[in-house]
Amino acid sequence: MDKIEHIGIAVNSIADSNALFTKLMGVEPYKMEEVESEGVRTSFFKSGPNKVELLEATNPDSPIAKYLAKKGEGIHHIAFAVEDIVSELARLKEEGFKILNEVPKKGADNKLVAFLHPKGTNGVLVELCQEIKGV
Amino acid sequence: MDKIEHIGIAVNSIADSNALFTKLMGVEPYKMEEVESEGVRTSFFKSGPNKVELLEATNPDSPIAKYLAKKGEGIHHIAFAVEDIVSELARLKEEGFKILNEVPKKGADNKLVAFLHPKGTNGVLVELCQEIKGV
Repeated sequence: MDKIEHIGIAVNSIADSNALFTKLMGVEPYKMEEVESEGVRTSFFKSGPNKVELLEATNPDSPIAKYLAKKGEGIHHIAFAVEDIVSELARLKEEGFKILNEVPKKGADNKLVAFLHPKGTNGVLVELCQEIKGV
Repeated sequence: MDKIEHIGIAVNSIADSNALFTKLMGVEPYKMEEVESEGVRTSFFKSGPNKVELLEATNPDSPIAKYLAKKGEGIHHIAFAVEDIVSELARLKEEGFKILNEVPKKGADNKLVAFLHPKGTNGVLVELCQEIKGV
């Protein structure tokens, strides 16, 4: 785990929360991006080597919509940067963690991502992400 | 906000969770510390420029005990490093955020800390922390 790549925060309205987090963090979001396969609209704020990602649901079947309905707004996941997601997933599987995405998938912000089941990590939804290097 | 200083995770048993997070993060905790005034026992794991802090309650009136009773284990707060906590709190107050500690207090890991009320930050408990420099 090279660093905390980002913290993901589930919000009801990304427009409202962009304004709020711009005030909080003292910077504007540097990027907004929709991930259609996940049913989310995201925005990203830089904080030195780290990021804060806001997540708004774009449809009622989105995992974020379900999270918001159950728990309300708040911190949704923590993402760690890794150099080699495939070998790190293999290491974690060997250690007994339950991997939700055995094959990493394309996430927001040019990343290959995979999640661990929060039941095996003290209720914390953990994401691993690896930067996709240029072709 | 210079970086994400750490993520705080509320856990039932710091002994069990130290073992779990050692497997997860591939490193052992570099420090354990009790903050008696807060009723917490903490441990810290490094992840590059960032940290993960585990928090276990040491008495039933501890804010962490109350959090665990209400929400169960999981991510409790996000802490941002700031250079000058007093001026940053003044800026945030001016922006309309509700400050829980108008006068920063001594926290774990040699820090001056203050929290913002999560009702004003999309349900996210935000901590600011400033390193206490040597005398």
